[in-house]
Amino acid sequence: MNKVGRYKFKAESYLCDFRGKATAALLGTFALRAATLHADERGFGYEQVSKDNIAWVLSRLAMEIYDYPFHDRTLTIETWIESISNISTQRCFHFIDEKGKTSGYARTIWAAINTTTRRPVDILGWRPLLSDFIEGDKGFPLDKNIKIPAIKESQNPTSCYAIRYSDIDINKHVNSIKYMEHTINLFDISMFKSQRINKIEMAYIVESSFDDTLQLYKQEISQSEYLIEIKKDSTSICRSRIHWEAETIQE
Amino acid sequence: MNKVGRYKFKAESYLCDFRGKATAALLGTFALRAATLHADERGFGYEQVSKDNIAWVLSRLAMEIYDYPFHDRTLTIETWIESISNISTQRCFHFIDEKGKTSGYARTIWAAINTTTRRPVDILGWRPLLSDFIEGDKGFPLDKNIKIPAIKESQNPTSCYAIRYSDIDINKHVNSIKYMEHTINLFDISMFKSQRINKIEMAYIVESSFDDTLQLYKQEISQSEYLIEIKKDSTSICRSRIHWEAETIQE
Repeated sequence: MNKVGRYKFKAESYLCDFRGKATAALLGTFALRAATLHADERGFGYEQVSKDNIAWVLSRLAMEIYDYPFHDRTLTIETWIESISNISTQRCFHFIDEKGKTSGYARTIWAAINTTTRRPVDILGWRPLLSDFIEGDKGFPLDKNIKIPAIKESQNPTSCYAIRYSDIDINKHVNSIKYMEHTINLFDISMFKSQRINKIEMAYIVESSFDDTLQLYKQEISQSEYLIEIKKDSTSICRSRIHWEAETIQE
Repeated sequence: MNKVGRYKFKAESYLCDFRGKATAALLGTFALRAATLHADERGFGYEQVSKDNIAWVLSRLAMEIYDYPFHDRTLTIETWIESISNISTQRCFHFIDEKGKTSGYARTIWAAINTTTRRPVDILGWRPLLSDFIEGDKGFPLDKNIKIPAIKESQNPTSCYAIRYSDIDINKHVNSIKYMEHTINLFDISMFKSQRINKIEMAYIVESSFDDTLQLYKQEISQSEYLIEIKKDSTSICRSRIHWEAETIQE
Protein backbone atom coordinates (compact mmCIF):
# COMPACT_ATOMS: atom_id res chain seq x y z
CA MET A 1 0.00 0.00 0.00
CA ASN A 2 1.17 3.51 -0.86
CA LYS A 3 2.88 5.21 2.06
CA VAL A 4 1.07 8.45 1.25
CA GLY A 5 -2.70 8.59 1.80
CA ARG A 6 -4.81 11.08 -0.15
CA TYR A 7 -8.25 12.17 1.11
CA LYS A 8 -10.82 14.66 -0.05
CA PHE A 9 -12.92 16.88 2.25
CA LYS A 10 -15.61 19.39 1.45
CA ALA A 11 -15.80 22.68 3.32
CA GLU A 12 -19.57 22.42 3.82
CA SER A 13 -21.07 25.90 3.94
CA TYR A 14 -22.77 25.30 7.31
CA LEU A 15 -19.33 24.61 8.81
CA CYS A 16 -17.77 27.81 7.44
CA ASP A 17 -17.23 31.11 9.23
CA PHE A 18 -18.67 34.55 8.50
CA ARG A 19 -16.05 35.09 5.78
CA GLY A 20 -17.58 32.11 3.95
CA LYS A 21 -14.38 30.13 4.51
CA ALA A 22 -13.31 27.06 6.42
CA THR A 23 -12.11 27.75 9.97
CA ALA A 24 -8.69 26.67 11.25
CA ALA A 25 -10.54 24.26 13.55
CA LEU A 26 -12.27 22.67 10.55
CA LEU A 27 -8.91 22.20 8.79
CA GLY A 28 -7.57 20.64 12.00
CA THR A 29 -10.58 18.29 12.04
CA PHE A 30 -9.92 17.31 8.43
CA ALA A 31 -6.23 16.66 9.15
CA LEU A 32 -6.99 14.43 12.16
CA ARG A 33 -9.61 12.62 10.09
CA ALA A 34 -7.06 12.06 7.31
CA ALA A 35 -4.59 10.68 9.89
CA THR A 36 -7.26 8.29 11.19
CA LEU A 37 -8.15 7.03 7.71
CA HIS A 38 -4.48 6.64 6.77
CA ALA A 39 -3.72 4.61 9.92
CA ASP A 40 -6.93 2.52 9.65
CA GLU A 41 -6.19 1.54 6.06
CA ARG A 42 -2.65 0.48 7.00
CA GLY A 43 -3.58 -1.62 10.04
CA PHE A 44 -2.56 0.69 12.89
CA GLY A 45 -5.74 2.69 13.50
CA TYR A 46 -7.35 3.26 16.91
CA GLU A 47 -9.49 0.10 16.78
CA GLN A 48 -6.60 -2.04 15.61
CA VAL A 49 -4.04 -0.88 18.20
CA SER A 50 -6.60 -1.00 21.01
CA LYS A 51 -6.35 -4.82 20.80
CA ASP A 52 -2.80 -4.36 22.16
CA ASN A 53 -4.12 -2.02 24.90
CA ILE A 54 -2.45 0.86 23.07
CA ALA A 55 -3.91 4.24 22.19
CA TRP A 56 -2.48 6.98 20.00
CA VAL A 57 -2.31 10.31 21.80
CA LEU A 58 -1.88 13.59 19.95
CA SER A 59 0.95 15.54 21.51
CA ARG A 60 1.63 18.36 18.97
CA LEU A 61 -0.23 19.86 16.03
CA ALA A 62 1.15 22.66 13.85
CA MET A 63 -0.60 24.06 10.77
CA GLU A 64 0.50 26.69 8.32
CA ILE A 65 -2.36 27.91 6.15
CA TYR A 66 -1.81 30.03 3.03
CA ASP A 67 -5.36 29.87 1.71
CA TYR A 68 -8.47 28.89 3.61
CA PRO A 69 -10.89 26.95 1.38
CA PHE A 70 -14.07 28.78 0.44
CA HIS A 71 -17.41 27.16 1.27
CA ASP A 72 -18.42 24.18 -0.86
CA ARG A 73 -14.86 23.77 -2.15
CA THR A 74 -12.95 20.53 -1.90
CA LEU A 75 -9.68 20.25 -0.03
CA THR A 76 -7.36 17.33 -0.69
CA ILE A 77 -5.09 16.27 2.13
CA GLU A 78 -2.07 14.06 1.57
CA THR A 79 -0.64 12.55 4.73
CA TRP A 80 2.26 10.25 5.53
CA ILE A 81 4.54 9.21 8.37
CA GLU A 82 7.68 11.28 8.41
CA SER A 83 9.62 9.51 11.14
CA ILE A 84 9.25 7.25 14.16
CA SER A 85 11.32 7.47 17.30
CA ASN A 86 11.01 5.28 20.37
CA ILE A 87 8.55 7.64 21.96
CA SER A 88 6.69 9.30 19.08
CA THR A 89 5.71 9.34 15.44
CA GLN A 90 5.76 12.45 13.30
CA ARG A 91 3.17 12.80 10.56
CA CYS A 92 3.04 15.34 7.73
CA PHE A 93 0.01 16.78 5.92
CA HIS A 94 -0.06 18.62 2.62
CA PHE A 95 -3.23 20.66 1.91
CA ILE A 96 -4.04 21.02 -1.79
CA ASP A 97 -6.82 23.16 -3.27
CA GLU A 98 -9.11 22.32 -6.21
CA LYS A 99 -6.62 23.75 -8.69
CA GLY A 100 -3.81 21.56 -7.36
CA LYS A 101 -2.13 24.45 -5.55
CA THR A 102 -0.65 24.06 -2.06
CA SER A 103 -2.94 25.78 0.43
CA GLY A 104 -1.12 24.73 3.59
CA TYR A 105 0.85 22.21 5.57
CA ALA A 106 0.52 20.54 8.93
CA ARG A 107 2.62 18.34 11.15
CA THR A 108 1.47 16.21 14.09
CA ILE A 109 3.42 14.32 16.74
CA TRP A 110 1.80 11.32 18.39
CA ALA A 111 2.74 9.16 21.36
CA ALA A 112 1.51 5.61 21.88
CA ILE A 113 0.39 4.92 25.44
CA ASN A 114 -0.54 1.76 27.27
CA THR A 115 -4.22 2.27 28.09
CA THR A 116 -3.89 0.48 31.44
CA THR A 117 -0.75 2.13 32.80
CA ARG A 118 -1.18 5.39 30.74
CA ARG A 119 2.61 5.19 30.21
CA PRO A 120 4.31 5.77 26.84
CA VAL A 121 5.20 2.69 24.82
CA ASP A 122 8.42 2.09 22.86
CA ILE A 123 6.78 2.30 19.45
CA LEU A 124 9.27 0.38 17.30
CA GLY A 125 9.75 -2.23 20.04
CA TRP A 126 5.99 -2.78 20.05
CA ARG A 127 5.43 -2.62 16.25
CA PRO A 128 8.75 -2.79 14.34
CA LEU A 129 6.93 -3.12 11.00
CA LEU A 130 5.58 0.42 11.35
CA SER A 131 8.96 1.53 10.01
CA ASP A 132 7.88 0.19 6.59
CA PHE A 133 5.54 3.19 6.37
CA ILE A 134 8.16 5.88 6.97
CA GLU A 135 8.26 8.26 4.02
CA GLY A 136 10.58 10.99 5.36
CA ASP A 137 9.97 14.70 5.18
CA LYS A 138 9.55 14.98 1.37
CA GLY A 139 11.08 18.47 1.53
CA PHE A 140 8.42 19.54 4.01
CA PRO A 141 8.76 23.25 4.95
CA LEU A 142 7.51 23.33 8.58
CA ASP A 143 9.87 23.27 11.56
CA LYS A 144 10.37 19.79 12.98
CA ASN A 145 10.35 21.09 16.53
CA ILE A 146 7.10 22.41 17.91
CA LYS A 147 8.19 24.11 21.12
CA ILE A 148 5.82 26.57 22.71
CA PRO A 149 6.95 28.52 25.77
CA ALA A 150 4.80 28.81 28.88
CA ILE A 151 2.94 32.07 29.39
CA LYS A 152 4.49 34.75 31.60
CA GLU A 153 3.83 33.86 35.24
CA SER A 154 2.45 37.18 36.34
CA GLN A 155 -0.52 37.24 33.97
CA ASN A 156 -4.10 36.94 35.09
CA PRO A 157 -6.35 34.58 33.14
CA THR A 158 -8.07 36.16 30.14
CA SER A 159 -11.06 33.93 30.84
CA CYS A 160 -12.20 30.88 32.76
CA TYR A 161 -14.07 28.01 31.24
CA ALA A 162 -15.97 25.13 32.84
CA ILE A 163 -15.89 22.01 30.64
CA ARG A 164 -19.26 21.34 29.04
CA TYR A 165 -21.00 18.46 27.33
CA SER A 166 -20.02 19.53 23.80
CA ASP A 167 -16.29 19.57 24.71
CA ILE A 168 -15.98 15.90 25.60
CA ASP A 169 -15.44 13.41 22.81
CA ILE A 170 -15.75 9.66 22.40
CA ASN A 171 -12.42 9.23 24.23
CA LYS A 172 -14.01 10.80 27.33
CA HIS A 173 -11.66 13.77 27.41
CA VAL A 174 -11.73 17.25 25.96
CA ASN A 175 -11.42 16.94 22.20
CA SER A 176 -8.10 18.20 20.72
CA ILE A 177 -9.86 20.44 18.23
CA LYS A 178 -12.07 21.94 20.97
CA TYR A 179 -8.91 23.33 22.63
CA MET A 180 -8.09 24.94 19.31
CA GLU A 181 -11.61 26.37 19.05
CA HIS A 182 -11.49 27.81 22.59
CA THR A 183 -8.00 29.19 21.90
CA ILE A 184 -9.09 30.93 18.70
CA ASN A 185 -12.26 32.22 20.40
CA LEU A 186 -10.03 34.27 22.73
CA PHE A 187 -9.49 36.69 19.85
CA ASP A 188 -12.00 39.39 19.16
CA ILE A 189 -14.22 38.66 16.14
CA SER A 190 -13.19 41.97 14.57
CA MET A 191 -9.63 40.63 14.08
CA PHE A 192 -11.01 38.09 11.61
CA LYS A 193 -12.36 40.87 9.39
CA SER A 194 -8.93 42.04 8.24
CA GLN A 195 -6.56 39.26 9.30
CA ARG A 196 -6.25 35.54 9.17
CA ILE A 197 -4.39 32.98 11.22
CA ASN A 198 -1.55 31.84 9.00
CA LYS A 199 0.11 29.59 11.55
CA ILE A 200 -1.16 27.79 14.63
CA GLU A 201 0.85 25.45 16.82
CA MET A 202 -0.72 23.44 19.63
CA ALA A 203 1.05 21.46 22.37
CA TYR A 204 -1.20 19.02 24.21
CA ILE A 205 0.39 18.45 27.60
CA VAL A 206 -2.14 16.97 30.05
CA GLU A 207 -5.71 15.75 29.42
CA SER A 208 -8.71 17.52 30.89
CA SER A 209 -12.17 16.08 31.24
CA PHE A 210 -15.54 16.17 33.04
CA ASP A 211 -15.83 18.61 35.93
CA ASP A 212 -12.61 20.49 35.16
CA THR A 213 -12.56 24.27 35.13
CA LEU A 214 -9.83 25.74 32.98
CA GLN A 215 -8.09 29.10 32.98
CA LEU A 216 -7.16 30.57 29.60
CA TYR A 217 -4.22 32.96 29.35
CA LYS A 218 -3.32 35.05 26.32
CA GLN A 219 -0.04 36.90 25.94
CA GLU A 220 0.74 39.26 23.06
CA ILE A 221 4.29 38.74 21.79
CA SER A 222 3.81 41.16 18.89
CA GLN A 223 0.87 42.46 16.88
CA SER A 224 1.00 39.29 14.82
CA GLU A 225 2.07 36.69 17.38
CA TYR A 226 0.32 35.46 20.51
CA LEU A 227 0.89 32.74 23.06
CA ILE A 228 -2.07 31.05 24.69
CA GLU A 229 -1.95 28.69 27.61
CA ILE A 230 -4.85 26.67 29.00
CA LYS A 231 -4.26 25.65 32.58
CA LYS A 232 -6.06 23.74 35.29
CA ASP A 233 -4.84 25.64 38.33
CA SER A 234 -1.06 25.20 38.26
CA THR A 235 -1.10 22.41 35.64
CA SER A 236 -0.49 23.32 32.02
CA ILE A 237 -3.10 21.50 29.87
CA CYS A 238 -2.44 22.96 26.43
CA ARG A 239 -0.18 25.65 25.00
CA SER A 240 -0.40 27.32 21.64
CA ARG A 241 1.18 29.97 19.49
CA ILE A 242 -0.79 31.81 16.84
CA HIS A 243 0.51 33.95 14.00
CA TRP A 244 -1.74 36.39 12.16
CA GLU A 245 -1.30 38.14 8.86
CA ALA A 246 -3.29 40.67 6.86
CA GLU A 247 -6.06 38.92 4.95
CA THR A 248 -6.48 39.46 1.23
CA ILE A 249 -9.68 37.97 -0.15
CA GLN A 250 -8.72 36.23 -3.36
CA GLU A 251 -12.00 34.86 -4.74
CA MET B 1 -38.94 14.89 -9.01
CA ASN B 2 -40.03 12.98 -5.92
CA LYS B 3 -41.54 15.22 -3.25
CA VAL B 4 -39.65 13.32 -0.58
CA GLY B 5 -35.85 13.65 -0.46
CA ARG B 6 -33.76 10.92 1.13
CA TYR B 7 -30.23 11.60 2.39
CA LYS B 8 -27.62 9.58 4.24
CA PHE B 9 -25.33 10.94 6.95
CA LYS B 10 -22.59 9.25 8.91
CA ALA B 11 -22.17 9.90 12.62
CA GLU B 12 -18.40 10.33 12.32
CA SER B 13 -16.76 9.23 15.56
CA TYR B 14 -14.91 12.53 16.03
CA LEU B 15 -18.28 14.31 16.07
CA CYS B 16 -19.79 12.00 18.72
CA ASP B 17 -20.12 12.61 22.44
CA PHE B 18 -18.57 10.75 25.35
CA ARG B 19 -21.29 8.09 25.10
CA GLY B 20 -20.01 7.29 21.61
CA LYS B 21 -23.24 8.60 20.11
CA ALA B 22 -24.33 11.47 17.91
CA THR B 23 -25.31 14.62 19.80
CA ALA B 24 -28.69 16.31 19.39
CA ALA B 25 -26.82 19.22 17.77
CA LEU B 26 -25.30 16.86 15.20
CA LEU B 27 -28.77 15.48 14.35
CA GLY B 28 -30.00 19.07 14.00
CA THR B 29 -27.08 19.77 11.66
CA PHE B 30 -27.96 16.72 9.57
CA ALA B 31 -31.64 17.76 9.39
CA LEU B 32 -30.80 21.30 8.25
CA ARG B 33 -28.35 19.86 5.73
CA ALA B 34 -31.08 17.52 4.40
CA ALA B 35 -33.45 20.50 4.08
CA THR B 36 -30.80 22.42 2.11
CA LEU B 37 -30.15 19.53 -0.25
CA HIS B 38 -33.90 18.91 -0.75
CA ALA B 39 -34.54 22.58 -1.58
CA ASP B 40 -31.43 22.90 -3.81
CA GLU B 41 -32.40 19.86 -5.88
CA ARG B 42 -35.91 21.26 -6.39
CA GLY B 43 -34.89 24.77 -7.40
CA PHE B 44 -35.67 26.73 -4.23
CA GLY B 45 -32.40 26.50 -2.29
CA TYR B 46 -30.58 29.46 -0.72
CA GLU B 47 -28.56 30.31 -3.83
CA GLN B 48 -31.60 30.04 -6.10
CA VAL B 49 -33.96 32.19 -4.02
CA SER B 50 -31.26 34.78 -3.32
CA LYS B 51 -31.67 35.85 -6.97
CA ASP B 52 -35.13 37.11 -5.92
CA ASN B 53 -33.57 38.87 -2.88
CA ILE B 54 -35.22 36.27 -0.68
CA ALA B 55 -33.69 34.26 2.14
CA TRP B 56 -35.13 31.34 4.06
CA VAL B 57 -35.09 31.94 7.80
CA LEU B 58 -35.50 29.13 10.30
CA SER B 59 -38.17 30.03 12.80
CA ARG B 60 -38.88 26.74 14.64
CA LEU B 61 -37.14 23.40 15.00
CA ALA B 62 -38.54 20.46 16.98
CA MET B 63 -36.89 17.04 17.20
CA GLU B 64 -38.03 13.88 18.91
CA ILE B 65 -35.24 11.34 19.19
CA TYR B 66 -35.87 7.74 20.18
CA ASP B 67 -32.41 6.40 19.41
CA TYR B 68 -29.22 8.38 18.95
CA PRO B 69 -27.01 6.85 16.26
CA PHE B 70 -23.82 5.22 17.52
CA HIS B 71 -20.52 6.42 16.09
CA ASP B 72 -19.73 5.37 12.53
CA ARG B 73 -23.36 4.42 11.89
CA THR B 74 -25.38 5.81 9.03
CA LEU B 75 -28.56 7.79 9.56
CA THR B 76 -31.01 8.22 6.71
CA ILE B 77 -33.18 11.32 6.77
CA GLU B 78 -36.31 11.64 4.66
CA THR B 79 -37.61 15.17 4.35
CA TRP B 80 -40.54 16.81 2.60
CA ILE B 81 -42.69 19.93 2.68
CA GLU B 82 -45.76 19.39 4.80
CA SER B 83 -47.62 22.63 4.15
CA ILE B 84 -47.15 26.21 3.01
CA SER B 85 -49.05 29.16 4.37
CA ASN B 86 -48.66 32.77 3.29
CA ILE B 87 -46.03 33.39 5.92
CA SER B 88 -44.26 30.06 6.44
CA THR B 89 -43.48 26.58 5.20
CA GLN B 90 -43.53 23.53 7.42
CA ARG B 91 -41.07 20.74 6.70
CA CYS B 92 -41.00 17.22 8.16
CA PHE B 93 -38.02 14.92 8.76
CA HIS B 94 -38.05 11.19 9.40
CA PHE B 95 -34.86 9.73 10.92
CA ILE B 96 -34.25 6.10 9.99
CA ASP B 97 -31.48 3.89 11.38
CA GLU B 98 -29.39 1.31 9.49
CA LYS B 99 -31.95 -1.42 10.16
CA GLY B 100 -34.78 0.66 8.69
CA LYS B 101 -36.23 1.49 12.09
CA THR B 102 -37.53 4.96 12.94
CA SER B 103 -35.06 6.64 15.28
CA GLY B 104 -36.74 10.03 15.43
CA TYR B 105 -38.69 12.82 13.81
CA ALA B 106 -38.24 16.52 13.33
CA ARG B 107 -40.29 19.43 12.09
CA THR B 108 -39.06 22.85 11.01
CA ILE B 109 -40.93 26.05 10.20
CA TRP B 110 -39.34 28.55 7.84
CA ALA B 111 -40.19 32.10 6.85
CA ALA B 112 -39.06 33.71 3.61
CA ILE B 113 -37.78 37.26 4.08
CA ASN B 114 -36.88 39.99 1.65
CA THR B 115 -33.15 40.46 2.22
CA THR B 116 -33.35 44.22 1.67
CA THR B 117 -36.37 45.08 3.81
CA ARG B 118 -35.90 42.05 6.20
CA ARG B 119 -39.74 41.76 6.04
CA PRO B 120 -41.59 38.44 5.55
CA VAL B 121 -42.69 37.61 2.03
CA ASP B 122 -46.05 36.09 0.97
CA ILE B 123 -44.58 32.74 -0.03
CA LEU B 124 -47.24 31.44 -2.41
CA GLY B 125 -47.68 34.90 -3.93
CA TRP B 126 -43.95 34.94 -4.65
CA ARG B 127 -43.59 31.30 -5.78
CA PRO B 128 -47.02 29.69 -6.41
CA LEU B 129 -45.39 26.58 -7.91
CA LEU B 130 -43.88 25.68 -4.53
CA SER B 131 -47.30 24.18 -3.76
CA ASP B 132 -46.45 21.36 -6.21
CA PHE B 133 -44.02 20.06 -3.59
CA ILE B 134 -46.51 19.85 -0.72
CA GLU B 135 -46.68 16.29 0.57
CA GLY B 136 -48.82 16.73 3.69
CA ASP B 137 -48.06 15.29 7.09
CA LYS B 138 -47.85 11.60 6.08
CA GLY B 139 -49.23 10.66 9.51
CA PHE B 140 -46.41 12.54 11.19
CA PRO B 141 -46.58 12.21 15.00
CA LEU B 142 -45.13 15.55 16.22
CA ASP B 143 -47.34 18.47 17.28
CA LYS B 144 -47.89 20.96 14.49
CA ASN B 145 -47.62 23.87 16.91
CA ILE B 146 -44.26 24.60 18.43
CA LYS B 147 -45.10 27.10 21.15
CA ILE B 148 -42.56 27.71 23.86
CA PRO B 149 -43.44 29.97 26.76
CA ALA B 150 -41.11 32.72 27.96
CA ILE B 151 -39.12 32.03 31.09
CA LYS B 152 -40.44 33.28 34.44
CA GLU B 153 -39.63 36.98 34.78
CA SER B 154 -38.07 36.83 38.21
CA GLN B 155 -35.22 34.49 37.30
CA ASN B 156 -31.59 35.52 37.20
CA PRO B 157 -29.54 34.37 34.21
CA THR B 158 -27.92 30.96 34.60
CA SER B 159 -24.99 32.24 32.57
CA CYS B 160 -23.88 35.02 30.27
CA TYR B 161 -22.20 34.48 26.98
CA ALA B 162 -20.30 36.86 24.68
CA ILE B 163 -20.63 35.85 21.03
CA ARG B 164 -17.40 34.45 19.67
CA TYR B 165 -15.86 33.74 16.30
CA SER B 166 -16.98 30.09 16.20
CA ASP B 167 -20.65 31.08 16.73
CA ILE B 168 -21.06 33.15 13.58
CA ASP B 169 -21.84 31.36 10.35
CA ILE B 170 -21.69 32.22 6.67
CA ASN B 171 -24.93 34.21 7.03
CA LYS B 172 -23.12 36.53 9.47
CA HIS B 173 -25.36 35.71 12.40
CA VAL B 174 -25.22 33.17 15.22
CA ASN B 175 -25.74 29.75 13.69
CA SER B 176 -29.08 28.07 14.57
CA ILE B 177 -27.37 24.92 15.76
CA LYS B 178 -24.96 26.93 17.94
CA TYR B 179 -27.97 28.14 19.97
CA MET B 180 -28.90 24.50 20.45
CA GLU B 181 -25.36 23.65 21.52
CA HIS B 182 -25.23 26.50 24.05
CA THR B 183 -28.69 25.53 25.30
CA ILE B 184 -27.71 21.90 25.83
CA ASN B 185 -24.42 22.96 27.44
CA LEU B 186 -26.44 24.55 30.27
CA PHE B 187 -27.04 21.04 31.61
CA ASP B 188 -24.48 19.40 33.81
CA ILE B 189 -22.45 16.73 32.00
CA SER B 190 -23.44 14.19 34.65
CA MET B 191 -27.06 14.29 33.41
CA PHE B 192 -25.93 12.76 30.12
CA LYS B 193 -24.58 9.71 31.94
CA SER B 194 -28.02 8.36 32.83
CA GLN B 195 -30.44 10.37 30.71
CA ARG B 196 -30.89 11.50 27.17
CA ILE B 197 -32.73 14.36 25.54
CA ASN B 198 -35.72 12.77 23.87
CA LYS B 199 -37.35 15.97 22.69
CA ILE B 200 -35.98 19.41 21.95
CA GLU B 201 -37.96 22.34 20.59
CA MET B 202 -36.31 25.59 19.53
CA ALA B 203 -38.01 28.89 18.67
CA TYR B 204 -35.75 31.36 16.87
CA ILE B 205 -37.17 34.80 17.52
CA VAL B 206 -34.58 37.50 16.80
CA GLU B 207 -31.10 37.17 15.26
CA SER B 208 -27.96 37.86 17.25
CA SER B 209 -24.55 38.53 15.82
CA PHE B 210 -21.09 40.07 16.33
CA ASP B 211 -20.53 41.96 19.56
CA ASP B 212 -23.72 40.74 21.26
CA THR B 213 -23.62 39.45 24.80
CA LEU B 214 -26.41 37.04 25.63
CA GLN B 215 -28.01 35.99 28.88
CA LEU B 216 -29.08 32.37 29.21
CA TYR B 217 -31.94 31.43 31.52
CA LYS B 218 -32.91 27.93 32.54
CA GLN B 219 -36.14 27.06 34.33
CA GLU B 220 -36.98 23.59 35.64
CA ILE B 221 -40.61 22.70 34.92
CA SER B 222 -40.21 19.15 36.22
CA GLN B 223 -37.32 16.71 36.62
CA SER B 224 -37.69 15.83 32.94
CA GLU B 225 -38.72 19.15 31.40
CA TYR B 226 -36.85 22.44 31.19
CA LEU B 227 -37.39 25.78 29.52
CA ILE B 228 -34.41 27.77 28.30
CA GLU B 229 -34.44 31.31 27.05
CA ILE B 230 -31.57 33.17 25.46
CA LYS B 231 -31.99 36.93 25.70
CA LYS B 232 -30.13 40.04 24.72
CA ASP B 233 -31.09 42.32 27.58
CA SER B 234 -34.90 42.52 27.35
CA THR B 235 -35.10 41.00 23.84
CA SER B 236 -35.88 37.30 23.52
CA ILE B 237 -33.46 35.79 20.98
CA CYS B 238 -34.24 32.09 21.24
CA ARG B 239 -36.47 29.93 23.42
CA SER B 240 -36.37 26.20 23.87
CA ARG B 241 -37.97 23.35 25.73
CA ILE B 242 -36.06 20.17 26.49
CA HIS B 243 -37.45 16.83 27.64
CA TRP B 244 -35.19 14.22 29.21
CA GLU B 245 -35.75 10.52 29.77
CA ALA B 246 -33.78 7.75 31.40
CA GLU B 247 -31.18 6.40 28.98
CA THR B 248 -30.93 2.70 28.30
CA ILE B 249 -27.84 1.75 26.30
CA GLN B 250 -28.99 -0.74 23.71
CA GLU B 251 -25.87 -1.66 21.73
